[in-house]
Amino acid sequence: MMHPVDFIREKRDGKSHDPAALGAWVRAFTAGEVPDYQVAAWLMAVYFRGLNEDETLALTEAMASSGEMLDLEGLGPTVDKHSSGGVGDKTTLVVAPILAAAGAVVAKMSGRGLAHTGGTIDKLESIPGFRSSLDKDEFLRQAKTVGMVVAGQSADLAPADGRLYALRDVTATVDSIPLIASSIMSKKLAAGAGAIVLDVKVGKGAFMKTPEAAKELAALMVRLGRRAGRRVAAVISRMDQPLGQAVGNAIEVQEAIRTLNGEGPADLTELALTLAEEGLALAGLPPERARAVWQSGSALAKFREFVAAQGGDPRVVDEPERLALAPEVEEVRADSGGVVSALDALKVGVAAMRLGGGREKKGDPVDHGVGVYLLKKIGDPVRPGEVLARLYHRGRGLEEARALVASAYRVAEAAETPSLVVEVVR
Amino acid sequence: MMHPVDFIREKRDGKSHDPAALGAWVRAFTAGEVPDYQVAAWLMAVYFRGLNEDETLALTEAMASSGEMLDLEGLGPTVDKHSSGGVGDKTTLVVAPILAAAGAVVAKMSGRGLAHTGGTIDKLESIPGFRSSLDKDEFLRQAKTVGMVVAGQSADLAPADGRLYALRDVTATVDSIPLIASSIMSKKLAAGAGAIVLDVKVGKGAFMKTPEAAKELAALMVRLGRRAGRRVAAVISRMDQPLGQAVGNAIEVQEAIRTLNGEGPADLTELALTLAEEGLALAGLPPERARAVWQSGSALAKFREFVAAQGGDPRVVDEPERLALAPEVEEVRADSGGVVSALDALKVGVAAMRLGGGREKKGDPVDHGVGVYLLKKIGDPVRPGEVLARLYHRGRGLEEARALVASAYRVAEAAETPSLVVEVVR
Repeated sequence: MMHPVDFIREKRDGKSHDPAALGAWVRAFTAGEVPDYQVAAWLMAVYFRGLNEDETLALTEAMASSGEMLDLEGLGPTVDKHSSGGVGDKTTLVVAPILAAAGAVVAKMSGRGLAHTGGTIDKLESIPGFRSSLDKDEFLRQAKTVGMVVAGQSADLAPADGRLYALRDVTATVDSIPLIASSIMSKKLAAGAGAIVLDVKVGKGAFMKTPEAAKELAALMVRLGRRAGRRVAAVISRMDQPLGQAVGNAIEVQEAIRTLNGEGPADLTELALTLAEEGLALAGLPPERARAVWQSGSALAKFREFVAAQGGDPRVVDEPERLALAPEVEEVRADSGGVVSALDALKVGVAAMRLGGGREKKGDPVDHGVGVYLLKKIGDPVRPGEVLARLYHRGRGLEEARALVASAYRVAEAAETPSLVVEVVR
Repeated sequence: MMHPVDFIREKRDGKSHDPAALGAWVRAFTAGEVPDYQVAAWLMAVYFRGLNEDETLALTEAMASSGEMLDLEGLGPTVDKHSSGGVGDKTTLVVAPILAAAGAVVAKMSGRGLAHTGGTIDKLESIPGFRSSLDKDEFLRQAKTVGMVVAGQSADLAPADGRLYALRDVTATVDSIPLIASSIMSKKLAAGAGAIVLDVKVGKGAFMKTPEAAKELAALMVRLGRRAGRRVAAVISRMDQPLGQAVGNAIEVQEAIRTLNGEGPADLTELALTLAEEGLALAGLPPERARAVWQSGSALAKFREFVAAQGGDPRVVDEPERLALAPEVEEVRADSGGVVSALDALKVGVAAMRLGGGREKKGDPVDHGVGVYLLKKIGDPVRPGEVLARLYHRGRGLEEARALVASAYRVAEAAETPSLVVEVVR
C-alpha cells in the first residue's frame, strides 16, 4: 500500500488517486491499519479537492465489499428504493407494496431515524407485533414468498461506510457530493438489488439545497450504480415542506395506508407513483402497472400480506385508527389570514422529535404515538384563528414543539407552489 | 468551548476563528479533550483556508504558554537565534559567541538533528566532555556568568507545538506558512529572549523554495514576534548548496572555530556577521561590534569560555584537529572539467546521514566523526579528475553516500552565483 502521508498529500495537491490504491486505502482503514487522524485529514482534502468518477466508484465498491454482499439472484426482478431523507417521508411504505404487487421483488434493508428525519423501521414498528429483526434465511424466504420484506439494516452491510460516515460526522466532512454518493451507493450495492430507484430531495428541508447540487448528486449516483452493473434512476423531488400531512411514526403509517387506499395526500401519491413507475421500468416491467395495482387495491392487499408475514397485526391495514396515537391533542392556529407561503420541514421534523417521536442520539427510544398532523400546507388558504396543525403528545416537549410548528408556518397574501417532482435522472 | 465540529466547519468554510476560541481549542487539544482526528481535519482545513494574522498570533501564544515560559529577565539584553534549517548550517556556533562577546546574552535551547539537517546540540556533543543537558539553574547561572549557554531543548517548552507538529507530520499538513510560523515562534516566545534573529533559508535545499514564500514566512514571524512583545528581525539566505564546506558534526565544529578565527569560508562568515549585526541592533547594542569582536579574537575567546563552562575540552578551540574525524577518507572526483554550476544541498545532507552522521528517526545514535568536506562549491572551476569532495567514513553507508555526493555536483561551462543574503526583514 502507498504510504498514508503520500496518499493524503496526493489528494491535498489536487491529484487523482489510482483506483486500486484508493481501494487498498479503504481496506486498510477498515482493517484498522490506518489511524483515524490520517483518514480525517484525507476526508478534509477530499472535501476541498473532490474525487473524480473513477475514484468515487473505487471508493463505493471498496466500501460495498467491506462486509457481506447480499445475493438476491434467483428472486426475480429485484428493486431497491432509497430516499436521501426528509420530513414526513413515508414513501417506502407506499412504493414497496406497489412494486411488489406489480411483480417486482422488494427485499429492503432500512435504517432507523436520527435527528429530525424518521426511519422506515421505526414507523413500521408502530404496528403491533411487527418484527424488523430478521435473520438472512427469513429475509430471503419472505422476499421469495411475499415479494416484499423490510428489515433493519444489519451492521455487516458496508461496514467501511459506517466507519467512514461516523468520522465524517465529527470532522465536518459530511457535505461532499462524492462522499455522499459513495456512502449511499455502497449500501445499495451491498444490499444486492438489480434495480435501484433513488429519491433525491432538494430544498430547505433537504441535504441538497439547490436543484443543481441535487442533480449533480443524482447523476453521479446513477452513473456509479450503472458502472457497478445495476440499473439505476433518480427522481429529484422538492422538500421545502414535509411530504404529506403526517409527521411521526404511527401517524405516518396511517397516512401511507390511506394513500395505498386512494385517500392520501396528492403530493405523496404523486411521488410514490412516480418512483414506482421508474422502479418498474428499471426492472423490465410495464410502468403502467404501478397505477393499476394502486387503483385495484392489490397494492394495499400486498401491504397487508407483508405486515402479516413480519408478525404485524394485519387489521391495521383496514382500520388504520387501530394504530394508537398519543391521547393529548394540541392545536396550532393561524394568527392572521391569507395563504400558507412556507412550512419549514426542518422545524416540523424537530418538533416531532421533541415530542418524543425521534431520536436526539443513536439508541434513544422512540414514542410511536406522538406526531404532528398538518391540516394546512403551502398554497392552502387560511382564516385567522383557523387550525393549522395538530400535535399528538404526552406532555413531553410540548411547549418547544408548539413554538417550532407555529414558527414553521408563514402566512402571506400569496404563495408559490412549485411542482413536487423536479426531474427524473435516468 | 465551541463544539469541535462547528469549529472545524468554521475554518472549512473560510471563516476566521475568534482568537479566544482558537486559544481554547489549542488548550483543549493539549489537555487531550479534542481527539486527534478532529485536530487533523482542522489542520487540513487550515492548509486550504489559511489563518489570518490574529489567528496565527493566538495559535502561537497558546502553544507558547502550553508549557514552561523561560524567564530571562534581569540577564541584560538577551538575543535568541533560529534557523529554518539547512545542510552544513553551523551558524549558531559562530553567531552566538560573537553576540556574547559583544555584550548580548545568548541563552539558547537547541534541538537535535533529524533527517538531512544536523542539530546544533549534536554538533556540540562532538567536543569531548561537552554537556548539553543542563538543569534550569545551571542554564541561567551560565547565561549570567558567561553570557552564552546552549542546552538541549526541554520537552516542557511549548509542548502543544510538539503534539501539533507530530500530527502535521503524519497528515501532510506541514507545508502551511501560518502553521510553520506559529510553530517556530511559539518555541521562541517560550524560550524567553527579548530579541530574536531569524535565519530563513530559501532555495532547493530549504523548506521554502521561492524567495516570495520565504519572505512571506519571514515577515509573518517578525510581525508575530513583535505583537508578542519581542524585537525580531529575519535574514533570508540562500540554501541551494550547503553552507560552508563542512557537513557533519565534528567537521562542522572545526569549520565554525576556523570561521571565528578568521579562516572560515566566505559564505558562512558573511551570514554569521549579518545575523550577529541584526541581533545586536535588536538588542540595542552597536552592530559594528560584531565585526570588531570577531576580528579581535574576543568572539573566539568567548567560545572557548563557553565550551569550558559546559564541561567541554577548551583545547579544541585552539587545535580544532583534536576533534576526531573518522579515519577512512574517500574522494569524489570530477568526471569532466568546467565550473561547478549546482551542488544539491539535500543530497549532501542525506549522504552525511547515510554515513551515520544524522538520524533516520528520532532517538537514533549519531556518529560525530563522519562527514563530507566540499572542496568545490558553486562557481569554482574544476579540472577533469580533480577532487570535488572528501567523505570521512567508517565503511557504513559509503556506497550510497558516494553516489549521492557525486550526483549532487553539476559541472557546466558557466555558473550563476546568486548572493547568499537575499534580504533582511525588520
